[in-house]
Amino acid sequence: MPHETQRQQTHELLQQNGIERALFANMASVKWLTGFNPPIQTGPSVFLGGPPMVWYENGAWTLVLFDWHIPNAGEFGAQPNCRIIAYEGYTIEHPLAGAVHLRAELRRVMGSALAGKIGIELRDAPADIVLSLRENNAVDIAPIDTWLDAFRRIKTPEELQKMRDNFRLTDIGHAAARAAVKAGNREIDVWNAAHYAIEKAAGQRVPLGNDCVVGYRQDNIGGLPLAYEIRAGDSCIVDLSTILHGYWSDSCATYYAGEPSAKQRAMHQTAQRALDYAISLVKPGALAREIDAKVREFMRREGYPVYPHHTGHSLGVTSHEEPRLTPSGTLMLQENMVVMLEPGIYFPGKTSVRLEDAVLVTADGAEILTHHDKALP
Amino acid sequence: MPHETQRQQTHELLQQNGIERALFANMASVKWLTGFNPPIQTGPSVFLGGPPMVWYENGAWTLVLFDWHIPNAGEFGAQPNCRIIAYEGYTIEHPLAGAVHLRAELRRVMGSALAGKIGIELRDAPADIVLSLRENNAVDIAPIDTWLDAFRRIKTPEELQKMRDNFRLTDIGHAAARAAVKAGNREIDVWNAAHYAIEKAAGQRVPLGNDCVVGYRQDNIGGLPLAYEIRAGDSCIVDLSTILHGYWSDSCATYYAGEPSAKQRAMHQTAQRALDYAISLVKPGALAREIDAKVREFMRREGYPVYPHHTGHSLGVTSHEEPRLTPSGTLMLQENMVVMLEPGIYFPGKTSVRLEDAVLVTADGAEILTHHDKALP
Repeated sequence: MPHETQRQQTHELLQQNGIERALFANMASVKWLTGFNPPIQTGPSVFLGGPPMVWYENGAWTLVLFDWHIPNAGEFGAQPNCRIIAYEGYTIEHPLAGAVHLRAELRRVMGSALAGKIGIELRDAPADIVLSLRENNAVDIAPIDTWLDAFRRIKTPEELQKMRDNFRLTDIGHAAARAAVKAGNREIDVWNAAHYAIEKAAGQRVPLGNDCVVGYRQDNIGGLPLAYEIRAGDSCIVDLSTILHGYWSDSCATYYAGEPSAKQRAMHQTAQRALDYAISLVKPGALAREIDAKVREFMRREGYPVYPHHTGHSLGVTSHEEPRLTPSGTLMLQENMVVMLEPGIYFPGKTSVRLEDAVLVTADGAEILTHHDKALP
Repeated sequence: MPHETQRQQTHELLQQNGIERALFANMASVKWLTGFNPPIQTGPSVFLGGPPMVWYENGAWTLVLFDWHIPNAGEFGAQPNCRIIAYEGYTIEHPLAGAVHLRAELRRVMGSALAGKIGIELRDAPADIVLSLRENNAVDIAPIDTWLDAFRRIKTPEELQKMRDNFRLTDIGHAAARAAVKAGNREIDVWNAAHYAIEKAAGQRVPLGNDCVVGYRQDNIGGLPLAYEIRAGDSCIVDLSTILHGYWSDSCATYYAGEPSAKQRAMHQTAQRALDYAISLVKPGALAREIDAKVREFMRREGYPVYPHHTGHSLGVTSHEEPRLTPSGTLMLQENMVVMLEPGIYFPGKTSVRLEDAVLVTADGAEILTHHDKALP
């Protein structure tokens, strides 16, 4: 049953807190609870009446969405206690009124006999909907923002399969990017080569994130690809995230236009050893901030400036989640978490290197999920 | 001054309605008021604390956004009466708290002496922010959703320049797509060719929307590109929107793998004549629903099923806006509106054609903004 574990956990949490009804309006929550995966590449559709939302009532779940998005809801509505209510977002005959239609359907779904505690993701719920609920004196509104975050850390087998499928796409993107890093190409050309290869392999559109920056950029840690031309000897950091089935991947490598210099080779080898060391620290019970501290200390001992970013982070329906491997990371790794590890070395305006793998925390260590070629040429 | 006209119009409207303070939370409003253009291709960043928002107070404007997005705000903050307040979304040292930081900055911007009528885009504003404003008995919350829509219909010279730049990109995408429609390629390959050419020309990432569908798809009106393989003689509708400087383009053509059949030729010629006819009807004072009715009647007289969608629509900071050329389109065209025209003919599961141009309404007619090659091979 798609995402049934997620709903069961949430049901129990809500019941334990005396919440019989709840409205989820955060996109990550909605994806995680239902498997719903809307298209995102051009922003929210103008025909939407608001965010897709999930209404919970005593163990029954309703996904309220724009009618054109029904196919993206997969098998959700085919399950017991789950239904899809779609509102009309586009018509020829009438003026567009998605916002009005969404609110009318949601009122119908909620029913007229509302009372007691209603949990609401208030940071993402449309204010007008919550204000009208608040008019009802029998209703007590309880914020439930971020309540699902802790559950999201441990991936189900179903989620891991979605993520494995997705990591295969980033591997494909990296192979194309590696080949495209050569003198005369620009950052955007490298990016395009990766994106082209990814969508060709997927047979569909795939959102692509993160960084593609040549070493001589002043901020050579990250950034979107621009028209900076790659010259012989330049480094180029390529950090790719794809989104498939609503789940994020992540990955980074550094490629060189021609032969890397001795300095670049040494940096690259240190980054590789830092990454290998980080991976060796991953196992159930390891403390996030201790992994972070150890990898930073490794960099320091190697005589390099310590990277000004996290050592790693988890991911899932969003790109960056707890546990975060940072100085403030108080969480312990657990089996079936997925963690990114990404040590880097940066000399602003000159050259930079970052290498990143994803690992699944297993019963006694780590399984690497990324398989892109990060080796020196 | 970037987007100064937009703010002046809005200032006057708010003053006329006795509104001294207002919170804009709708993405289209924020883009239109400020020129702010956030990256969108992978959805909202996980580091965001909420939507970018604009606070208005007696003629002074503040854009509240995620600190990483300051470069996307362009020259907004450099203008008199305009400022940018950025909140911290990402830190290494502390747990992520963009939502908390955004709210703290917004409270600071609004000040502690709030009173009177506050206009709020309630459909898009985070509910928790509005609920806490509502706690203040001195405050009267007034919904201002869609208030800016009417202003947005008439484009300023600055907006038209942004849109012209953008339409050049769609022309480039179409040239690549036209060449890629051939037997053996799939819809996604055609799409990739277009996207690759567009980003190569732009030297940066460009969001790309709409449709790429082969004629033998059952729903051959539109849809995202998939792995359907193009065979000899197939039609392929390619409907492309790019987003540049925050503004949408739009455009459609139909290409053929090899030689179109006699039937396809006749359909294509009729669609071209329908489009030419539609363009000839565009001028200030023309009524949206009358243009719609006339082009539908043209199709009927030609003996084809009338397309089950709008005849056209305006666009700007979103993809589809009033005036809409539909049976319910009560608006009159005015100078400096931009209108899409897109008659089509569809035989589900067999073949289909749609041709689309953008036109600027001029003092006495229309200027075509799209220049892609829509001719039969």
